[in-house]
Amino acid sequence: MAAKYVYFFGGEKTEGNAGLRNLLGEKGANLAEMVNLGIQVPSGFTISTEACDFYQKNKGKFPTKLWDEILINLKNLEEITGKKFGDKENPLLISVRSGSRSYIPIAESTVLNLGLNDEISKQLSNASNESFSLDCYSRLISMFGYSVLNVERKVFESLIEKKKKKVGKASTQNFSPDNYQVLIDRFKVAIKKNSEREFPQDPLKQLKMAIEAVFNSWDSESSKNYRHIKGIPDEWGIAVNVQAMVFGNLGENSGRGFAFSRNPESGEKKICGEFWSNCQTASLATDIPNSVAVSSLKETLPDIYLAITEVCQKLERRYQDVASIEFMVEENQLYTLQTEAAQRTPVSAIKIAFDMVQEGLVGKQNALMRIPTDQLDTVFHPMVDLKSKPTVLAKGLGASPGAASGKVVFCPQKAQELAEKKEKAILVRTETSPEDIRGMEFAQGILTMRGGKTSHSTVFAKAMGKPCVSSCSSLKIDEKKKQCHIGGVRIKELEEITLDGSSGNIFKGTIKTVQPKLSAAFTYIMKWADELRELKVRANVDTPHDALVARDFGAQGIGLCRTERMFFQANRILYVRAMILASDQKVREEALKNLLPIQRSDFTQIFRAMDGLPVNIRLLDLPLHEFLPTKPLAIKNLSKELNIPLKTLQSKIDSLKEANPMLGHRGCRLGITYPEIYQMQARAIFEAACKLVKKGGKVFPEIMIPLVGHVNEFRIARELLDQVAEEVIQKNGVKLKYKVGAMIELPRAALTADEISRDADFLSFGTNDLTQTLYGLCRDDAWSFMAEYLKKGIFLADPFSTMDRKGLGALIEIAVQKGKSSNQNIQLGACGEHSGDPDSIDFFCQLGLDYVSCSPFQVPASRLAAAQAAIGDIPSSIGISN
Amino acid sequence: MAAKYVYFFGGEKTEGNAGLRNLLGEKGANLAEMVNLGIQVPSGFTISTEACDFYQKNKGKFPTKLWDEILINLKNLEEITGKKFGDKENPLLISVRSGSRSYIPIAESTVLNLGLNDEISKQLSNASNESFSLDCYSRLISMFGYSVLNVERKVFESLIEKKKKKVGKASTQNFSPDNYQVLIDRFKVAIKKNSEREFPQDPLKQLKMAIEAVFNSWDSESSKNYRHIKGIPDEWGIAVNVQAMVFGNLGENSGRGFAFSRNPESGEKKICGEFWSNCQTASLATDIPNSVAVSSLKETLPDIYLAITEVCQKLERRYQDVASIEFMVEENQLYTLQTEAAQRTPVSAIKIAFDMVQEGLVGKQNALMRIPTDQLDTVFHPMVDLKSKPTVLAKGLGASPGAASGKVVFCPQKAQELAEKKEKAILVRTETSPEDIRGMEFAQGILTMRGGKTSHSTVFAKAMGKPCVSSCSSLKIDEKKKQCHIGGVRIKELEEITLDGSSGNIFKGTIKTVQPKLSAAFTYIMKWADELRELKVRANVDTPHDALVARDFGAQGIGLCRTERMFFQANRILYVRAMILASDQKVREEALKNLLPIQRSDFTQIFRAMDGLPVNIRLLDLPLHEFLPTKPLAIKNLSKELNIPLKTLQSKIDSLKEANPMLGHRGCRLGITYPEIYQMQARAIFEAACKLVKKGGKVFPEIMIPLVGHVNEFRIARELLDQVAEEVIQKNGVKLKYKVGAMIELPRAALTADEISRDADFLSFGTNDLTQTLYGLCRDDAWSFMAEYLKKGIFLADPFSTMDRKGLGALIEIAVQKGKSSNQNIQLGACGEHSGDPDSIDFFCQLGLDYVSCSPFQVPASRLAAAQAAIGDIPSSIGISN
Repeated sequence: MAAKYVYFFGGEKTEGNAGLRNLLGEKGANLAEMVNLGIQVPSGFTISTEACDFYQKNKGKFPTKLWDEILINLKNLEEITGKKFGDKENPLLISVRSGSRSYIPIAESTVLNLGLNDEISKQLSNASNESFSLDCYSRLISMFGYSVLNVERKVFESLIEKKKKKVGKASTQNFSPDNYQVLIDRFKVAIKKNSEREFPQDPLKQLKMAIEAVFNSWDSESSKNYRHIKGIPDEWGIAVNVQAMVFGNLGENSGRGFAFSRNPESGEKKICGEFWSNCQTASLATDIPNSVAVSSLKETLPDIYLAITEVCQKLERRYQDVASIEFMVEENQLYTLQTEAAQRTPVSAIKIAFDMVQEGLVGKQNALMRIPTDQLDTVFHPMVDLKSKPTVLAKGLGASPGAASGKVVFCPQKAQELAEKKEKAILVRTETSPEDIRGMEFAQGILTMRGGKTSHSTVFAKAMGKPCVSSCSSLKIDEKKKQCHIGGVRIKELEEITLDGSSGNIFKGTIKTVQPKLSAAFTYIMKWADELRELKVRANVDTPHDALVARDFGAQGIGLCRTERMFFQANRILYVRAMILASDQKVREEALKNLLPIQRSDFTQIFRAMDGLPVNIRLLDLPLHEFLPTKPLAIKNLSKELNIPLKTLQSKIDSLKEANPMLGHRGCRLGITYPEIYQMQARAIFEAACKLVKKGGKVFPEIMIPLVGHVNEFRIARELLDQVAEEVIQKNGVKLKYKVGAMIELPRAALTADEISRDADFLSFGTNDLTQTLYGLCRDDAWSFMAEYLKKGIFLADPFSTMDRKGLGALIEIAVQKGKSSNQNIQLGACGEHSGDPDSIDFFCQLGLDYVSCSPFQVPASRLAAAQAAIGDIPSSIGISN
Repeated sequence: MAAKYVYFFGGEKTEGNAGLRNLLGEKGANLAEMVNLGIQVPSGFTISTEACDFYQKNKGKFPTKLWDEILINLKNLEEITGKKFGDKENPLLISVRSGSRSYIPIAESTVLNLGLNDEISKQLSNASNESFSLDCYSRLISMFGYSVLNVERKVFESLIEKKKKKVGKASTQNFSPDNYQVLIDRFKVAIKKNSEREFPQDPLKQLKMAIEAVFNSWDSESSKNYRHIKGIPDEWGIAVNVQAMVFGNLGENSGRGFAFSRNPESGEKKICGEFWSNCQTASLATDIPNSVAVSSLKETLPDIYLAITEVCQKLERRYQDVASIEFMVEENQLYTLQTEAAQRTPVSAIKIAFDMVQEGLVGKQNALMRIPTDQLDTVFHPMVDLKSKPTVLAKGLGASPGAASGKVVFCPQKAQELAEKKEKAILVRTETSPEDIRGMEFAQGILTMRGGKTSHSTVFAKAMGKPCVSSCSSLKIDEKKKQCHIGGVRIKELEEITLDGSSGNIFKGTIKTVQPKLSAAFTYIMKWADELRELKVRANVDTPHDALVARDFGAQGIGLCRTERMFFQANRILYVRAMILASDQKVREEALKNLLPIQRSDFTQIFRAMDGLPVNIRLLDLPLHEFLPTKPLAIKNLSKELNIPLKTLQSKIDSLKEANPMLGHRGCRLGITYPEIYQMQARAIFEAACKLVKKGGKVFPEIMIPLVGHVNEFRIARELLDQVAEEVIQKNGVKLKYKVGAMIELPRAALTADEISRDADFLSFGTNDLTQTLYGLCRDDAWSFMAEYLKKGIFLADPFSTMDRKGLGALIEIAVQKGKSSNQNIQLGACGEHSGDPDSIDFFCQLGLDYVSCSPFQVPASRLAAAQAAIGDIPSSIGISN
């Protein structure tokens, strides 16, 4: 049997369906399916992706008989429409559209009104509306010009613009036939000039060239690069959809539009969308008329409104999802041009999923799969009310969601001052450092010049649930003059700005914000998710307050409690500094004695907040010099406070400096060279735990040793802790079970996880640092060139926020396998930023991890993502499950 | 059959041999073997390691019948010696010595003269020499005291010291019987006081306790820790050697000593060693008499000298290696106490190996295996002449071998000034940075406070063949006062010091140095090595001069040519800076145009020097800011030179600063964001290559792309280079083959080597940087805590200089396997510091790498190590092959 390359749809003979997406492309498969559902589409046929593949592999030759197949199908189309392609009296006009398997931005092309030429358009003008005919012809020529003959789009746009100015008309809709004729002539001249080819008058030649243009688009440099980067095989090819034209430009009862079956912003079950009356296409920027809401059709074209509603219902039922359609209205007849899954906001996604289950339209699993989790945390934060159309000063990286307004301050102290006066502050910094944590707590939001999605400011802002915009390259700070420039606008200290940490926008002044309301639907959705998932979700929490927040969001414990943050608080930083600067072990132990009750009280509160749930505490990780002041005045003050000569102090601070602190004396390296630090921390943990146990509390402490690179480091640190534990537990005479494990954040730890697991109770993947060393990429510096890397597609995603399966994934897989090989019962968790990323959660589920730990506000999204990972693939989605 | 635990040696019944090392320990196996060879040893028996293992596993119980076996063997020993253990008239005295499989520093213990007690020693005093008898008894008590009863050694030492002072005698050799008796009494009191036990009078009890003490030593904390760290299984156990005593303290024709069959310093074939006349042991620091050279025995005890010569010859023939023996002379009778392989210097090792082949004693392969390669490069450098007994100021890390003297300077400019006056300089710095390379070239040697074996200063000093001492913590520099303190001694600028880059010693003043002479033997040894090895050895070379040096040392090409170093030279740094500071691409291209002819000339010279051999050039790797000045004055000058306003310049320099430059905008990230840099470098390479090809030269350029982390980076960079190559080669109309490959220096690159290999011609492992990210350890900072890590045994070796097989090795293995899986023909090399390390070379051979590339002076050692790796294990070495 000869290969079949062309599939008809419409009339009696529809050969495709939604299942044939690989063969017919998404558009073609959905067109066929709509015909099957009884939805009116302009009839036509799809040339399969296999034809494209043949064409690519045979130096631009059509498969034998392809053209014959096309002609047969064209004939069929003529019969159905009662029109004839190339005929002067009753011409069939057609559209040619590309259609790939899934959305490929570079390869989308459309040519409308094929079949017209000078002669036919003239005849058509005589027979019908002259303006309509010439409008169509002019659109054909321009679209053919840029889609097939590669003339730049702006050539046509500028010709339209000139003509509109000259005749004083706002839109081509009001053009006279003469105006159109002038445009047509100018378009033809422009094509000749720019492509050295003539616009072809032979309709069949037009058709062949348009099909070839689609095939060729698959082979263009940009398209090949895109596929290469996305890992899309060349064989996929692209399909071509040829359809009878329908016309939205035949008067007031015609037009084009798009519609959603439910409101994609609110989720409300009500058709919405936009409609352009008497309009065929909006492909040129200079040629877009005003639109009206689709809902207004209820009044103006009630039949059409009804028809749209019916189409939407049919599609929802068939695809079990919100539908989005493009349509054309030709003299009060609705034609659906294409359908795809609707994008939706987190709020709407939750409502839609819940409603659809209530309506009996989908099952719970199916509903859960339809909720995108990546922006879900935004629903817990206030959002900028864009209805007020605020002035955007600049755009940075939306690093921690939510909106906040306040007075600009450039240092943490000032933020605290304002907070004491009950005023709101936005902390503006080049980049935050651990020293700034205090100020961050007093500020409403943080704006930084540098940093990426996992830099210091971001991680802490997320943990605190505060909005943060980072990587704002147009931010210039002049601390001396107490002012900054944002996007070229000078902003003085105490001037007000507003940050949108979701979009990254920075606004002048205080902008109204709205707080999304959490519906009952949300509670149900989360309940369903919890029933389905196996992966536990914990939170990264550093303070008793955040612990309570996390618990509210459904966290099943703390997966990462960073003890550094506690060290920076006002009443303790001096002791910390005294400890660091101690001239010998005795002095250091003295300083640590002062810290002990403070840390014990921290842990007591956190354990109490998480009663009954595990609390994983990471011992001190930061390089010591990060706790020391850097500015001359601060150093002078410290010298007085600690009674250390200024010169000695300065030289000590200098001696602690490192060329690359990220690769320096930090993590368990500190705990091993200064064992008294970890001993103090262990004592604080166990004393706090024993105290609560005595009062009947349920405490499950887990102690995490950071930056382990060699099993010997782990062993030495664990021995230290076990000794303290034994002593404290015995002294208190209680029963207390605890775990000691390693944070796996160095490639060597991952590669030797079998050795470490022999002595460890758990491994927790610190994916932020693991990514840093895996890529040799500092998360604070990387953004300088990573922006370009992402733009060029060298990295498909920021590896700090999206799981890079080939690198990070492969390494974690090795570690999991090695870890389990030597200790079947090893508890496995992940606590880096990836723990809030749905794709990573899916991966962690596959690997059989016990839990992920993310920032408190991300806990619901992670719970949902874990459920989605457990459910796996649900078929018959229009596109969202891709 | 019941287990056998005791093996006799001596007389008619020797049950062991050299092959039973695991069972009998090294000492016991060699004793048995010596008896088999007809060498006179004190007869005795060895209690096997299996007995020790049983004892460990059964809570300190002897295996059933072990004691019976011991008694039977003791009886046998009594028969052979004609003496009786515990007898008053004719007592058999015995020694008990531990003996492990291979050297374990903690577990060595010896007790001599067992079998004596108050009564027997009194009888013996009456029967023979009273002083001798009491000397022996006092030694037994002290040795039993510290080896068996765990009394501290210094307790006995101080008692001896006091007594010597009191009686006014320099050595116990001159003690009167009364003196000895007082000592014996005091020793007993001290034991009672310190151990709360009495010295046992029952000889059999003495024996049992001494054996148990050896077994217990295997289970001590320190011994367990050591084994744990070295990965020695508990089951190995330790053997016990019980031997009849022979006495070196019976007068002028008695004594003890050690001897080598050949001179371990020069390699000369002549017995050498030391001899202590009338002396039994030297185990207490306060009790060591003066020694004489063994050669003097030729005159004083000619029979003994002859006997020693014969023993040495027998052992050389049996073990095919230089022998080292310990011996005792008892009334003109030679007893060999133990033998092991002799340590040797690189110079002697070469001579010995060559001579032994010439003598027909060993084959070439065997000879090559006997040469330790790890210090071989020292033979190409001058050495400090220690005969002059110079004053050591301090000791740092011997980072690059050789000796150099010169005037202390604190900045590169001063080094250059002195060089222009033909004066010698030693550059003294906190740590060198790339800026200092110029100064390093003008200095004789480098001394730094920080840094480790692969820090910047070390790597470049090694490459230049200059001595370097780094990590000298007692170095304090005061640049303002133009002085420094070294080990507490103030040294002013222009004062002279001498560095020994092998030992790490720093001497005051200019010390005489000696230049080792390269013998003809060396040439032969290298020739034999080259015939045997498969792994190619290339050199890391950055300048034409070094290329010639490398070629002289037998390098088979350049494996790493770092283009950074070229950029720092005086006539080009300004252009480099202009390029970095360029405000746009055009200005940058202008600056690059100036650099092009300079780079082209560099490459032309290097290609010419390496005519016929491959030259692997790594494109620019450093972060840009390292090329910029840091000091205010230098910045001011640059501002004038480049005509950039000071403020603009300063802000540009600030903007290029990174928190962790090692993880920042460097390597191919630079080449991708500033493609014009790599384009210029590629043009320089290909123009230079084409020019030489036209003149008939044989050029094999290989271009290495640094810091690849993602295959897309490699692809983009390769495309850039291929385009330039095609253009230049076509323009020149020549044929030129070249390779483009990736430096694998990030864990992610190693994990995705299959992807990279598809497009790459070679992979080269940059093990320095790979170790940095694998461990999360900056090589410039690490030394601060790594010293402690090494001391505590957390790291067994500096991972930057010795291959860590479990971490780095595992990662490279993954990369090699993945790389070959997608490209069978991929060329594989290594170019980090590990390429000079014998164990790493062995590993690289196992993995099937094509070449290693090390610093020029290390090339011979690596050639030899590659041959040793190819040869594999040679049996019957006494210990060296361990």
